[in-house]
Amino acid sequence: MSLTFNIQQTHGTARRATMQLPHGVVETPIFMPVGTAGTVKAVPQSVLEDVHTQILLGNTYHLYLRPGHERIRRLGGLHRFMSWPHPILTDSGGFQVYSLNKLRKVTEDGVRFRSHLDGSEHVFSPEHSMDVQIALGADICMVFDECTEWPATRERARESLELTMRWARRSRDYFREHAQQVPWFAEYGGYTQSLFGIVQGGMYEDLRRESAERLVELDLPGYAIGGLSVGEPRENTRAIIEATLPLLPADKPRYVMGVGYPEEIVEYAAMGVDMMDCVLPTRAARHGLLFTREGRMNIKNQRFAEDRNPPDPECCCMVCRRYTRAYLRHLAMAQEPLGGALNSIHNLHFYLDTMQSVREAIARGTLSELVARVRDRVR
Amino acid sequence: MSLTFNIQQTHGTARRATMQLPHGVVETPIFMPVGTAGTVKAVPQSVLEDVHTQILLGNTYHLYLRPGHERIRRLGGLHRFMSWPHPILTDSGGFQVYSLNKLRKVTEDGVRFRSHLDGSEHVFSPEHSMDVQIALGADICMVFDECTEWPATRERARESLELTMRWARRSRDYFREHAQQVPWFAEYGGYTQSLFGIVQGGMYEDLRRESAERLVELDLPGYAIGGLSVGEPRENTRAIIEATLPLLPADKPRYVMGVGYPEEIVEYAAMGVDMMDCVLPTRAARHGLLFTREGRMNIKNQRFAEDRNPPDPECCCMVCRRYTRAYLRHLAMAQEPLGGALNSIHNLHFYLDTMQSVREAIARGTLSELVARVRDRVR
Repeated sequence: MSLTFNIQQTHGTARRATMQLPHGVVETPIFMPVGTAGTVKAVPQSVLEDVHTQILLGNTYHLYLRPGHERIRRLGGLHRFMSWPHPILTDSGGFQVYSLNKLRKVTEDGVRFRSHLDGSEHVFSPEHSMDVQIALGADICMVFDECTEWPATRERARESLELTMRWARRSRDYFREHAQQVPWFAEYGGYTQSLFGIVQGGMYEDLRRESAERLVELDLPGYAIGGLSVGEPRENTRAIIEATLPLLPADKPRYVMGVGYPEEIVEYAAMGVDMMDCVLPTRAARHGLLFTREGRMNIKNQRFAEDRNPPDPECCCMVCRRYTRAYLRHLAMAQEPLGGALNSIHNLHFYLDTMQSVREAIARGTLSELVARVRDRVR
Repeated sequence: MSLTFNIQQTHGTARRATMQLPHGVVETPIFMPVGTAGTVKAVPQSVLEDVHTQILLGNTYHLYLRPGHERIRRLGGLHRFMSWPHPILTDSGGFQVYSLNKLRKVTEDGVRFRSHLDGSEHVFSPEHSMDVQIALGADICMVFDECTEWPATRERARESLELTMRWARRSRDYFREHAQQVPWFAEYGGYTQSLFGIVQGGMYEDLRRESAERLVELDLPGYAIGGLSVGEPRENTRAIIEATLPLLPADKPRYVMGVGYPEEIVEYAAMGVDMMDCVLPTRAARHGLLFTREGRMNIKNQRFAEDRNPPDPECCCMVCRRYTRAYLRHLAMAQEPLGGALNSIHNLHFYLDTMQSVREAIARGTLSELVARVRDRVR
């Protein structure tokens, strides 16, 4: 037993829960900042703690290529390597193989691809992805899936779904056999990692339902909806989540991968999603885009050049308590590294604070007001 | 009266003092981190406070070009603009005009140069440099000088010295007339900025002495030795400082601009220097060079790839308390922005902690042991 999921309250389709993992308790619904290469870009771990990050996502693909999973295993696993003693989730590498490799070759066994760093050739199979993820030692691992491209024909989406199903089974079998090899197994009293399944099926609701139903038979401790945020319109994303969620076990965590904007994560949480992750708050920050209670703000805009207000006057993060829009604009225009760091800190605080509001709204029964309020900001 | 300098203790030629400035008290000997464009690259202001930064240096040239001194004036001055309510010193812009502009044209009036950002043409004169520095509102300003290139003939060094002398007088006269225009004048009960003179004279000790003697006649509240760290051997730097210091008033702060390595700043403090600044700790950090009690360390070196020790096991900074050499090496190899930030934080802590040790050693009479110990590290 390495994950317990206790639902505390429900409100409509939404639920508030606690998820106990080997490295700590996570309160859901939760947003997970993305720490691609063992670091949330430009943000020190102490600041991630300050903004109340409960669980980080690490990218298996990036860490496998650099510094290498065997090195991280020898250094005691990813938690110790990056000095993050709190929960971590790793993806399977499947999405990066898909998004960073135009020339990948998919076979029944796995995916052959070239490193985006040096062009060297590598193969990821379900077994290999599990091996890498066990070496990294995240609290939650993901089955190795094929991320179906968008747009995809129905035939192609079914073929991809079937492959993902076979790979999910292979992932689970390998994972079960090797679970005790996680670097912190002895230290954590025999606790191990948890493996989540991933629903695919393109933008076809019936295929998604079929994928979900068959995946549930594998009896995994949690389920994700993958293959979204691949360029499709937001209505599609929403429709797929809506069609799939009811088929995933209500007593297990439900995770939508790679979303989204503030108004999306609030809406999906209201629909019953427990976990989400996205590079958006940090990537947008590095380009000068701030999320605030007044809406989105491109801090490079000339109108902020002498604006002495904090980025978000209602925000209590360390950035809004100390700095003005004029200063952040200057940092962005001068491409100063502090600019990307401060913008990232604000955006992460904003996202995590938004999810805290979601959890409180579930408890108070005021979630629909919150969803409307967050949606109104971007109008 | 805007600066009071009280010597608490002396030990040989070294002295320990407090310097009261409008924005706070500075304990000397002190090292000043360089905040080029209104930011110490990659380091948040709260962390600068954590590592006990007492006074920052801002670059007039960079701030004049971007975001512009008039904008900073309208925003209340540099302290408010960058949210640094502690002491600041600005240089005159002379050194950057010299180091960033191959095609500058020097006349009696001033220097015509092209912006390194967009090629636009600008002129800095003593009066203009004062005007910019008054707009920025640092606690300490510097006269506009000509930084003599190295190597320079005796004739050229004298010519440059004479120009710097005439410019120093013009700087002082303009500064005195306009001192009440500093943005925080009313708010700080009529306190104003202080203007320091700059000794030039190339690598000729007699010219340096002449420059110092004539500069002292201007009766300024502090004096700097400029035109060093321009490529000359370290023995020259040391000889010039040694020849010049005794001619500067003992009851006023003495500042050596643009130095240096840890073993240098400790040695110069022992010679009687009160203030120093350098980009080295932060610039070197961004290239992976760490200063530690074990000597210099290129963190990119393969031998640190699986080294679980902190960068400096004797250091108590936030970086050494949390991260390993293996992790910092990974960040440096992956060119992650967090790497430059963490390395900068450690190096700044190391420099400021070293100067704290210097002040304590002056009080205890153990400075020569400290100088020897710091020098031994780099052997």
